[in-house]
Order: sequence, then C-alpha cells, then structure tokens
Amino acid sequence: MINHLCVIGVGLIGGSLSLALKKAGYVKQVTGLGRSIENLEKAKQLGVIDDYETDYAKVIPKADMIFVSVPIGAMSEVFRKIEPHLNKHSIITDGGSAKHTIIESATKILGVKVNQFVPGHPIAGTENSGAEAAFDSLYQKRRVILTPLESNSTDDVAKVSEMWNIAGAKVDEMGARHHDLVLAGTSHLPHVLAFALVDCLNNVDDVDEIFKYAAGGFRDFTRIASSDPVMWRDICVNNSEAILAMMQSYQQDLDNLKEAIHNSDSEELLKIFTNAKKARDNFCM
Amino acid sequence: MINHLCVIGVGLIGGSLSLALKKAGYVKQVTGLGRSIENLEKAKQLGVIDDYETDYAKVIPKADMIFVSVPIGAMSEVFRKIEPHLNKHSIITDGGSAKHTIIESATKILGVKVNQFVPGHPIAGTENSGAEAAFDSLYQKRRVILTPLESNSTDDVAKVSEMWNIAGAKVDEMGARHHDLVLAGTSHLPHVLAFALVDCLNNVDDVDEIFKYAAGGFRDFTRIASSDPVMWRDICVNNSEAILAMMQSYQQDLDNLKEAIHNSDSEELLKIFTNAKKARDNFCM
Repeated sequence: MINHLCVIGVGLIGGSLSLALKKAGYVKQVTGLGRSIENLEKAKQLGVIDDYETDYAKVIPKADMIFVSVPIGAMSEVFRKIEPHLNKHSIITDGGSAKHTIIESATKILGVKVNQFVPGHPIAGTENSGAEAAFDSLYQKRRVILTPLESNSTDDVAKVSEMWNIAGAKVDEMGARHHDLVLAGTSHLPHVLAFALVDCLNNVDDVDEIFKYAAGGFRDFTRIASSDPVMWRDICVNNSEAILAMMQSYQQDLDNLKEAIHNSDSEELLKIFTNAKKARDNFCM
Repeated sequence: MINHLCVIGVGLIGGSLSLALKKAGYVKQVTGLGRSIENLEKAKQLGVIDDYETDYAKVIPKADMIFVSVPIGAMSEVFRKIEPHLNKHSIITDGGSAKHTIIESATKILGVKVNQFVPGHPIAGTENSGAEAAFDSLYQKRRVILTPLESNSTDDVAKVSEMWNIAGAKVDEMGARHHDLVLAGTSHLPHVLAFALVDCLNNVDDVDEIFKYAAGGFRDFTRIASSDPVMWRDICVNNSEAILAMMQSYQQDLDNLKEAIHNSDSEELLKIFTNAKKARDNFCM
C-alpha cells in the first residue's frame, strides 16, 4: 500500500501507473509534479492524478513513493530538485529506457541518498504521449525490469516490485548494463530503424505517392516512428554504445542481403527470409 | 460480370479476390488451378472456389478472366502453360508485386497474345498465406495499380479495372517501371528491413532474452517478417534494381544517424526524429 505517490512527469508512463494503482485501491493520494500546468491540469481533470504541484519542496517530503517518468535528458535536473527535500523513508524509482547513465547521474547527484533510488524500466508504451494517452491497463501482463543498486535495501526493492505487480506487470531483475544491451536490440534499434525509414522515404522525390500506396504492413512497421522524438533523442544519447553496436551488426545484415539481391542469390535470400519468419513466428506468438 | 474466373494459385491474394467477387454476385463460376491438391481441396471446402483442376487444357479455354496469383518466380511457367490453350476472348491479369520483369517474361512467352495480358498489383495483404488466409474484405478501400501494355485494348483494361472496383478497391494506372520504384520504397524496402532485423537479433547470443522483452512496438515492427519467404525472395530477385537503390539510400540515412548518435548530436537527432514523426503522422492517419 502506498500512502502518497508523487509522479514526476505525468505522461503515458507515469499517468498509466497512477491509474492502475488507483484502480487497484493501492494508493491513497497521487500528486503530479511537472513543468506544464496545462498537462497537469488535464491530468487532474481526467482523474489521472488527485492534485498537482510545481514546487518540489511542497510534495517530496510527504511522498513515500516517487516515480520519475520524464525523458532521460531531464532526469538529472529532477534528481537535483528532489535531493534537498528527500525524506529518508521515501523510495525513488523511475521509468527510463536506458539504465546505466541514469544510475551514474543519480549517484553523482543524490550522493549517499542514492540507496533510496531503485532504478526500473516498464517495457510498455504506445506511440502516444501526454497525460491523455494514459490508461489503467497499459502494464497488464507486461514486463518491468528493475536494475537494483548494491546499496538498495531488500525492502525498498520489494516495495517497488510489489507496486508493479499490483499494476499488472511481471517484474524481473538484472544488471543495468545487461538491461541496456537487451533493450538496444529489442526496442532501441527497431525505433531507430523506423525513424530512419520514414526519414528516408520522406526525402524521396515522389514522397506523396510513396505514402499514398503504403499498405497495412507499412503502417504497422512505421507506427513506432510516431513516438515522442525527445524521448528517443534522449535514449539514443544515453545508450549510444549498445545502440551503435546493434546498428553496426544490423548494417552487416543489410550488406549481406544487398549482396544476395545483387547476385540474384535465390538460395541465400530464401534461407535468410525463412529463418527470420521462423524466429518471428516462434517468439512472437 | 464474369462468367468463368480461373484463379491460378489459390492463396491469400487469389482466394480473397474470388471471395469478394462471389459475395458481390459478379462471377458465375470460379475454378482454382494449382499444384497443391491439398490446398485446392481446402479452398473448395472453404467455399473460396467452386471447383478445381490441375490440367490447364481443361480450364483455360473456358475462362473469360484468368487471374495469376502465384509467386513471381512461378509466373513464367504459368504463362507457358496458359499460352497453348488461351481463347482469344480471354483476359489474363496478375497480382505480382513487381511488374517490369513479369511483363518481360509474359511478352517473351505469350508472343502476340500478350495484348490479352493486363498487368496488375493489388496493394493489400497480410502476413498470412494459403487458401485459409483468404477473406472477402481484403481489398475494401485498398488500391490496385494496373500497368497496362501499349497493346492492351481499352476494353480489356476497363474489365480488369471494373473487377477490382467490384472487389472494393480503387484502381490507378501507371507505368511498370514507375510502379516498381514506388513499391520498392513503400513495401519492398520495409519487408527487407524487417526480415534483416529479425535475422540480426536471431544471431545475438541472448536471443531468447531479446525476444522475451520485446514489447508491442517490436511486434508491430516485425509482423511483416512473418510474410511468405518464397514470395519475398521472388520480389527481391525481380525488383532488385529499385530495391538496391532504396537500400543504398536507407543505409546513408543509418550512417547519418550513427554519426549523430556517436557524437551525441542531440540537435540533429531531434531534427531527424521530429521530421519522421511529422511525416508519419501526416501520411498515415
């Protein structure tokens, strides 16, 4: 049970957590903190939060759970604003999609209090953003990865884990670097590829015609290119090493395919496509 | 009105055309021609076709409309089997996703009778294949591109066009080379990229973990990698020039992105992602 949840950044991720916990009766009060009064007001009107505040000093001391769901690039500033007001019984957790740079930043800014920060990442989302995009079932049957610090107490990690279970998610734990590698492959690379595809087609002379004849597969394939550009800029900057390694490996695959297409190597093409179909059908049923 | 439609290759594309025309009462009899008796029998049981045949001599002379919906690599053989039995009043059309090589092959094999071949391409599909994947609304509000030959009669082109209208589609006409360029961007490139992504991730050490943490975006993004490998092998071989040009241009985009990520160039990343989101939101609403 959470008495007072403070959600910093009331968008799809933070708003949906609030809605799920409120629906389960697991939280007494949810206060939104953020920079956009307009978004906070909308969140309150939609019942995503109970009230809101822009002054950290008025909320942070009272909150027993603080969920940071701002773009990664804004996290350092948020940690800096939290630190002076942090109650020693409060737990901070976050929803950032790249973990090791966030942990570095939190360690630098929170100092000894970093033991109250349990880093996390809910593997869920849609291409929509803002408080009005939030819905209470976003985390149902989704996975949340926690990357606990050596200094975290078992009790704090258990509380964050329970919160996510109540919201409907399955929780796993792993190291931050390992998390970043896995997510680079499964999420960051596909997003970068989709953004690049739309950008590439957008620069073709017949761009209107290209999009006119786009079929359902194209829409599915490029849906993630509608995701929040700021969020994805921050992920790219904060998980650059793993993303660049995956892009390198992907380009090698494209080079092999180009060679097979150039040589009309039917056998090689059929092998690659058949393996890919098998893997996709096995893993994504 | 079509008296006797012959569908060669009763899969998703051919079967769905048959179902749509039967539903509209626009065809009296549909005969399936193919190599797999098992698939033809299933198609008949499902009501996708009225009857089936494996001997071209028994069906082709009677058919007033012949729809060729086999993978592109099998089209030459089909044209070769049609040619000796073709009635001079019959129309042949097809559903191939790459047009200029099909036209070359038809011209060589059908000789003067190529004037009875109206090349076409319905821009529709799902990742499923076979007769059981067919459904009568596949072409509703979808586009069909015809790439008529100089030698086609206006009347034959109009008949093929009307058939697709009845099936629910909007029909456009353009040159075969232009079709192949547009489709390389909007369909062939995305499929190649999706196959390459799944293949790339499938070769990572932690492949099970990668797919375990795949979220909804990944599923959408890779759905088209479940498409029929034989069909896509044939498309790659038959539209290699345009596909290779698009891949080249795409890799240039990836190189730019890699450089921006490597340099933590937040401004450039935000610009690319914002432009892509705008283009995607504008064109795919």
